[in-house]
Amino acid sequence: MAYIDLGVNEEEFPGITGPMRFRPETAQPLNALAEVLLRAPHSIPPGERELIAAYVSGLNDCAFCCSSHSAFAAVQLDAGMSLVDKVRADPDSAPVSPKLKALLHIAGAVQQSGRAVTPELIDAARTEGATDVEIHDTVLIAAAFCMFNRYVDGLGTFAPEQPEAYLPGAARIVEHGYGV
Amino acid sequence: MAYIDLGVNEEEFPGITGPMRFRPETAQPLNALAEVLLRAPHSIPPGERELIAAYVSGLNDCAFCCSSHSAFAAVQLDAGMSLVDKVRADPDSAPVSPKLKALLHIAGAVQQSGRAVTPELIDAARTEGATDVEIHDTVLIAAAFCMFNRYVDGLGTFAPEQPEAYLPGAARIVEHGYGV
Repeated sequence: MAYIDLGVNEEEFPGITGPMRFRPETAQPLNALAEVLLRAPHSIPPGERELIAAYVSGLNDCAFCCSSHSAFAAVQLDAGMSLVDKVRADPDSAPVSPKLKALLHIAGAVQQSGRAVTPELIDAARTEGATDVEIHDTVLIAAAFCMFNRYVDGLGTFAPEQPEAYLPGAARIVEHGYGV
Repeated sequence: MAYIDLGVNEEEFPGITGPMRFRPETAQPLNALAEVLLRAPHSIPPGERELIAAYVSGLNDCAFCCSSHSAFAAVQLDAGMSLVDKVRADPDSAPVSPKLKALLHIAGAVQQSGRAVTPELIDAARTEGATDVEIHDTVLIAAAFCMFNRYVDGLGTFAPEQPEAYLPGAARIVEHGYGV
């Protein structure tokens, strides 16, 4: 049970979906932000942007966001959930590009603190070919999930335990996006 | 100098204003979120909502956001910057209402982690008269500033040192809000 009365059946509207029903005025910009960061046309494929979101959500120990965005990443990556699991366990040994590894390092620093991002982390990403927009969006995706994770857990929302529970949401996001 | 080329004079566009000029697609929902959380009609006055934002930004050691939102709070509170300084130093001994103290305790927990928010913190706020919307918005304001702070510092943006540098922004926010 969430800490406030969300006015919904929480099994039907788990995680962030309950607070978004409760407060549509804030849901609108939150969904718009997720849409531009994770779904809009970009040089980083949607599956890799969802991977950054899942990685940060795992570091923040947010079960709902980590399971959701792991599923959203898995359905959009050729290597599926096995790749997501490898990245979440250890980005350095995961079979992803050197550029994505460098961006995941930046995201991991942002999860700790904005001040943990160093010129060296930025230079390493640039050396692997990351552009200014890619660096900017990686910082903002990681920062945004430090918000989403705290929003979801700070209100004590319900997170289904079974990974399968997140698959319908993944199909919906891929087909319709985050638009409200 | 920010870590990426923001395409602006950073003394003219310090802190978050540079990245917002660099990437208007993300600036739009970020400003819309700030507007509904900090400026829209609400049972918590705008000055007190800015105080929550300044308090969290201080805990995150984000100079630009803390100075900005301290100034935005000060110009909207009768007791001005002296009250902001007292709240930032120690909410418990600051001359604010018991309800606002309880909400600041929730915000302080959110700054650490969503999982640091406890039923006891929520109950304490409710005992002091906080509504579900007030608790929801406190959690989301605190969570949002964990994003804004990481965005601003994760890109290494410039923060003016003099408090006076933040007063024109405060006047602009009070008159025009966060709309883009």
